[in-house]
Formats: sequence, structure tokens, C-alpha cells
Amino acid sequence: MIKKGIAEFIGTFVLVLFGTGTAVLGGGIEGVGTLAIAMAFGLSIVAMAYSIGTISGCHVNPAVSIGLFVNKRISAMELVYYLVGQVLGAIVATAVLKSILVASDLSVSNLGQNGFGNLNAMGAFLVECILTFVFVLVIVMVTGKKGNPEFAGLVIGLTLVLIHLLGIPLTGTSVNPARSIAPAIFAGGEALSQLWVFIVGPIVGGVLAAVVGKFVLDSEVK
Amino acid sequence: MIKKGIAEFIGTFVLVLFGTGTAVLGGGIEGVGTLAIAMAFGLSIVAMAYSIGTISGCHVNPAVSIGLFVNKRISAMELVYYLVGQVLGAIVATAVLKSILVASDLSVSNLGQNGFGNLNAMGAFLVECILTFVFVLVIVMVTGKKGNPEFAGLVIGLTLVLIHLLGIPLTGTSVNPARSIAPAIFAGGEALSQLWVFIVGPIVGGVLAAVVGKFVLDSEVK
Amino acid sequence: MIKKGIAEFIGTFVLVLFGTGTAVLGGGIEGVGTLAIAMAFGLSIVAMAYSIGTISGCHVNPAVSIGLFVNKRISAMELVYYLVGQVLGAIVATAVLKSILVASDLSVSNLGQNGFGNLNAMGAFLVECILTFVFVLVIVMVTGKKGNPEFAGLVIGLTLVLIHLLGIPLTGTSVNPARSIAPAIFAGGEALSQLWVFIVGPIVGGVLAAVVGKFVLDSEVK
Amino acid sequence: MIKKGIAEFIGTFVLVLFGTGTAVLGGGIEGVGTLAIAMAFGLSIVAMAYSIGTISGCHVNPAVSIGLFVNKRISAMELVYYLVGQVLGAIVATAVLKSILVASDLSVSNLGQNGFGNLNAMGAFLVECILTFVFVLVIVMVTGKKGNPEFAGLVIGLTLVLIHLLGIPLTGTSVNPARSIAPAIFAGGEALSQLWVFIVGPIVGGVLAAVVGKFVLDSEVK
Repeated sequence: MIKKGIAEFIGTFVLVLFGTGTAVLGGGIEGVGTLAIAMAFGLSIVAMAYSIGTISGCHVNPAVSIGLFVNKRISAMELVYYLVGQVLGAIVATAVLKSILVASDLSVSNLGQNGFGNLNAMGAFLVECILTFVFVLVIVMVTGKKGNPEFAGLVIGLTLVLIHLLGIPLTGTSVNPARSIAPAIFAGGEALSQLWVFIVGPIVGGVLAAVVGKFVLDSEVK
Repeated sequence: MIKKGIAEFIGTFVLVLFGTGTAVLGGGIEGVGTLAIAMAFGLSIVAMAYSIGTISGCHVNPAVSIGLFVNKRISAMELVYYLVGQVLGAIVATAVLKSILVASDLSVSNLGQNGFGNLNAMGAFLVECILTFVFVLVIVMVTGKKGNPEFAGLVIGLTLVLIHLLGIPLTGTSVNPARSIAPAIFAGGEALSQLWVFIVGPIVGGVLAAVVGKFVLDSEVK
Repeated sequence: MIKKGIAEFIGTFVLVLFGTGTAVLGGGIEGVGTLAIAMAFGLSIVAMAYSIGTISGCHVNPAVSIGLFVNKRISAMELVYYLVGQVLGAIVATAVLKSILVASDLSVSNLGQNGFGNLNAMGAFLVECILTFVFVLVIVMVTGKKGNPEFAGLVIGLTLVLIHLLGIPLTGTSVNPARSIAPAIFAGGEALSQLWVFIVGPIVGGVLAAVVGKFVLDSEVK
Repeated sequence: MIKKGIAEFIGTFVLVLFGTGTAVLGGGIEGVGTLAIAMAFGLSIVAMAYSIGTISGCHVNPAVSIGLFVNKRISAMELVYYLVGQVLGAIVATAVLKSILVASDLSVSNLGQNGFGNLNAMGAFLVECILTFVFVLVIVMVTGKKGNPEFAGLVIGLTLVLIHLLGIPLTGTSVNPARSIAPAIFAGGEALSQLWVFIVGPIVGGVLAAVVGKFVLDSEVK
């Protein structure tokens, strides 16, 4: 079980370092653009699903682990290992990103933290709920009893690209508490005071998706 | 059969929310660009094909359902459930998109409705016929007797990306009556008066593709 | 065999309409960019490989058909049907594209014809040879005895994206005589006088790839 | 074994020609952008993995070959053939790219060489270590005992896209000594004096990944 925790640590490290790193370094005049940032998050999932995913299933996201725990795919003990690995991996990723920025002569202070942008808290909460609902619904189905395990990593990664295309202009897209906690700790201020939205919103959306998958779309039955 | 209707409702909701939402929110100065909008529509299909597709086949498009009905892959009763689910899903998606825009301080009134752009009605009709012909031909073949069910969702999604790359500068790309009906209802005006093109064009193109697939390319025979 | 010719006609029609159409309509100020044009060509192959490819193998390119004829995968009679279908499909595609442009109020005269750009004839010839060599080598291998038929359409399509990324700034990228012949006929002038490069270059590169695949990389032996 | 060397020669030739060529030709005002350059490198891997990969496994990268040698997947003798093929292939690719630029009237002197950019040597070394660690970890896992050989080429190619999205603004992204050696030889100067970072960094990262894959993530055990 410790290996699963380590696998989740590595996977979440890669997701947060490459996702938020591309967002931060690609900003400004020579920006890589929304599509490239969306692809950095999505392709991190593809890369990790087919590597550390063979050990842990590659959740790399507390909202996913909690959703799958609700559907009894992992035990309570496993959930603890997953959550610890995910949050630690995200924190180390943000620390590494920050030290790269400090070691450079780039004047970047942004760490890829999420924020409301042009929405109010309720709007941001609903957006994160809906985005995570779609994300976890796809995960629950494609890895479920009627799913397609070979294609799962690719499909889930491309779904995360999709979710960022809509979500980046709204909340920057969290759908993942670990991905939001780490930058908020280092950035502090508004990112920390708005953090609850990016913890509660994804968890509510993820649990809802697990329930809809199970009882409406037969994700747990052949 | 009610589950298939619900699955189509969810799938069309996701397609229209993420597709038109990315088009609307990605417009203006910080626009995401044509490729990103095309990918939002296409990746919605990938995400839904491997999730709700296990229940309903993921048509999420009346032109597709009518084409497959012509080739006797679904019954008349199923067709009704599919069409109702699709149109309702699209309407709820546009309502959600509109409420997000209202809850924000973005001054966006566009809802991603289709329009003729630089063409006249006849030109737009022909464009939608051709685009939908290609889309439904790929669907009929890759899900047909000689097809490749494992890759189908990916191939169909990438085909929808392709179709948007050509179609966005011309009509905004419908190829899907449900995707056009919902924004037109909310936007009214020109979008509503031009709507017939985006209902009749795709249906004609889709039926033609089903017929060509069946009689010329042996889609229904091993 | 007539069905194979029809399949090649449809496939080449789609490749040329969507590829050159995206290049033409995506030009100018609101241009879709090199990556989107490259993807239009590549995704046309993905779409056609998994649809009409079940009938004809989806060559949609005389350089590919001649290369595969050299390796004895198709007969001389089949080659004739393929070539006729491909050239006719390309010509109809350019005619449709032209009529869409005429029916619009866009002031576009470009039809996506290939040209030397910043190179001289010898440089363009070598570029087309190398690009087509890589393209046909991938095709010969992935559809060969040690190949991967399930992934072939996806891999070949993504390879065509790659080839356009390098080739668009140089020659516009032909690697396909049919794709160059059709716009040159309608555009005339320089496109017609430079056309030989885009016929001979790809054929030489394709035949070379077939030979290297067969004798160096064992494409025809298990 | 000579055929494996030839396969690696062809594969590395394609990677370096298309990758650095797209970076060089796509620069300046009509630039293709970071995403397109990242995709040129990644899709080269996809194209080569499913073609010459059937002969040699498509390492096309000394850091990959050394990592797999550490895990005893290739012999010392094979390693020599692979390294020679890779470095020669890269050198010929840069020579071809240079001769295309010379034959054109483009005033481009850049050959796609790597450099520190905004970082110091230590920072660049760490970045290359981390990037290559992730790249080789994915390779070791997806081609390992619990891996997925069918998807491997696609997953590894998409991982290289990801790695370039983060790495291009930092070091230009090497993760591959052969890819850095060839342009540095032709460009000389700073590219040559900084070259050690792009040889040692990737090898250290690659060996570390092989060890972590083997002992922590069970890459060599079913």
C-alpha cells in the first residue's frame, strides 16, 4: 500500500509541476495559450496513467479518490494513503516550480493558483462542481465494469484537456483539491481565502458523479 | 430505454456546454482560437463516447440518430427517446451557460449560436450537408460491421475536430440540430430565422451518409 | 474493384477539401495557424482510414499507391483504379471549395496550391522527397507484416500532421500528387509550372521508402 | 544488430530534423508557437515508434538507451550500436536542415540548439534531470512488464509533447544528448560550451528513472 502512496506522490507531482508550470511560464507576451496549458494538464494524466497508473490506478486527485471510495473501489485505508501522497506530491511540485523561478531571472510571482476570476464564490463553486462532475463521471465509466481499461488513460487525459478549455477563463480550472492546495499555501492571500471553493466544489462534484455513474449509468455492474 | 434517453441527455449537455461555452468564453482578445474551439467539440465526443456511450452509443446528435435509424440500428421508439434526450440536454446546457455568464461580470451576450456568416442560405445549407455527410459517414463505418468499436469514440471525436476546422469560418459548424436549436431559442432573432438550415442541412447530409455507407461501402455487412 | 476506386474518390475528396479548405479559409488576419492546418490534413487521414479504409486501405495519395504497388501489395489494375479515384476526388474537392468561395463574400482567390516559397526548384524537390520518404516509410511499416493495423490510421494521420509542421513554411507540403494537381489545374500560372516538383518529388520519395522498408526494415516479412 | 543501428539512425534523423526544423522554421513573426514545436518532437516519436520501433524499439535517445541498459533490457554491444546510430542520425539531420536553410532565401542562422535561456547552469542541469526523469520513467513503465506495448508509442510521444511544453521556455528542452550534440557541433560557441549540461543532465535523469522504475514501481516484474 505504501507503493500506491508513492505512485500517487509521483503522479500528482508531475501533474502539478507540468500543469501549473506551463501555465506560469507560458503566461505573458510569449504565452503558450489556453490550448497548450489545457494540454499540459491533460497529457500529464496520459503520461502518468500508463506509468504509475499500473501501481495505483493514477487518481492523482482527492476528488477522484473520494468518488471511487464512495463506489467502494478503494478501502478507507487506501484512501488515506492516496490523499497523503497526492497532497505531498502537489506541495513538492509547487516548491520545485518556485525554486526554478527563483533560480531564473524571470520576474514571475504567480504559481498557478486558482481564483474566481470574473465570477462570484457561488458561481465559481457551481462551475467547479459541474467540471468535476463531468471529469469523474468519465473516470467512473471508462474504468468501470462496462469500461475500456486500455483506452482509459488516454480518454481521461483528453477529458481533462476539454475541462480546462472551458474552465480556464472561469476559475483557472481546479477540479482537484491537491492541485489547488499546494499553490495556495505558497501564494497565500486571496488564493488561500478562496481555497475552500476548490476543495469543496470538486469533492461535491466528484461524489455526485460516482453516485450517478453507479445508480443511473450502471458503472459498477456488467 | 429511459436510461438511454438519460445518457443522451447527459452527453448532449456536455457537448453543448463545453463546445459552445469554449466558443463564447474563448472569444475576444484573449481568445482560445479556432483549434481550441474545434477541440472542445471533438473532445466532448471522446469523453462521452467512452462513458455514456456504453449505455446509448453516444449519438448526442439528432442527425446521427436519424441516420442510424435509417440503417435500422435503432428502433422508432428508441429514436424518440434519443431525440427528446438530446434536445433537452442541449437546452439545459445553454441555460447553464447563460446563467454562468449572467453570474459573471463578463459582458458576453453571444451563446454560440450558428449563423450563415459570409455565405448565403443555399451556400450554408450545402456546407452543412457536406460537413454532416462526412461526419455521419465516418460514424456509420467505424461503428459498422467492418468497423473498429474500440477506436470509434476517438476517431469520431477527432473527425468532429476536423469538421470544425473547416466549418467554423463558414457557418460556425452545426452538423447537429440539437446543438443549434438550444442557443437559437435563447438568442432569438437571426439565429432563430436561420435555424432551419441547421436542422434540415444536417439531417439531409446524415441520411445521405447512412445510405452511401450501407449501399456503397457495405457498412451493414461483414 | 470499382468500390475501392469509389472509396479512394471519397477519401481524397475529404483530404483535399478539408486540408486545402482549412488552409485557404484559415488564412489572413483571423488565421487558424500552421498547427490547425497541419491537423486538418492529418485528421482527414484519421477519419478516412477508419471509414473508407475498410474498403480500400485509404491510400488517398498516388505516391502511397505507387509505393505499395512497388512492394506488391496492390496489383497494376488496382493501381489504375486507385489513381483515377484519387485524382478525380481531388479535382471535385477543389471545385467544391471554389464554388463555396464564389458563393461567399470572402475575397479569397487562393485554392491551397503548393509552391516553392523561399526555396529553389532543387531545394523544393529534395524537401518533398524527404517528407514523402518519411510519410511512406511509416505507412509501409505500420501496415506491414510487423505492423499494428489497429493503430495504423491514427499513427499515419499524426505523421501527416508532423510532416505539415515542417513542410508548410517550405513548400506548403504536398507529399501527394493528387493534392497538388487539383488546385494547380484551377489556379494555373505558377502553380501549374511548378507542379512537376509536387508530382515527381513525392513519387521518388515514396518508392524509395517502399524499397528501404522492404529490404532494410523487413516490412514485408514477419 | 546492424539493422537496429540503422533503425535508430533513421529514427533519430527524423526526430532531430522535424523537431529542430519546426523550431527553427517556425520562429519569428509567423511562428508556429510552442505547442506546434512540442508536437513536432512528440509526433516524431509516434511516427518512429510504430515504424522503425518494430526493429529497434525506437529509443532514438542516448539517455533512453543508457537507462534501458541499466535495467538490462539491452546488452552493452547493442548499446554501442544504438548510441552510434543515434548520434550519426542527429548529425545528418542537422546537416540536412542547414543545407535546406542555405538553399533558401530565409536569413535563419539558428539550428535549434539548446541553451540555458533564463537559468544558470545548475538550474538548467536540474531542469533537464527532472524532465528526463519523467520521460524515461514513462518509457520504462509503459514498455515494462506491466506496461501496454500497443499504446506505448502514442503515450511516449504525448509525454514528449508535455515535456516540451514545460521545458521550451526554460532550456529549449533537450532530454536527449543526441538531439543537443548535433546542433551544437554546427552552431559552436555558447551551444558547445553549454553542451555538457544537455549530455550529463539527461543521462543522470534517465538512469535515476530506470532505477526508480525497477525498484520502486516494479517495472521489470510482472
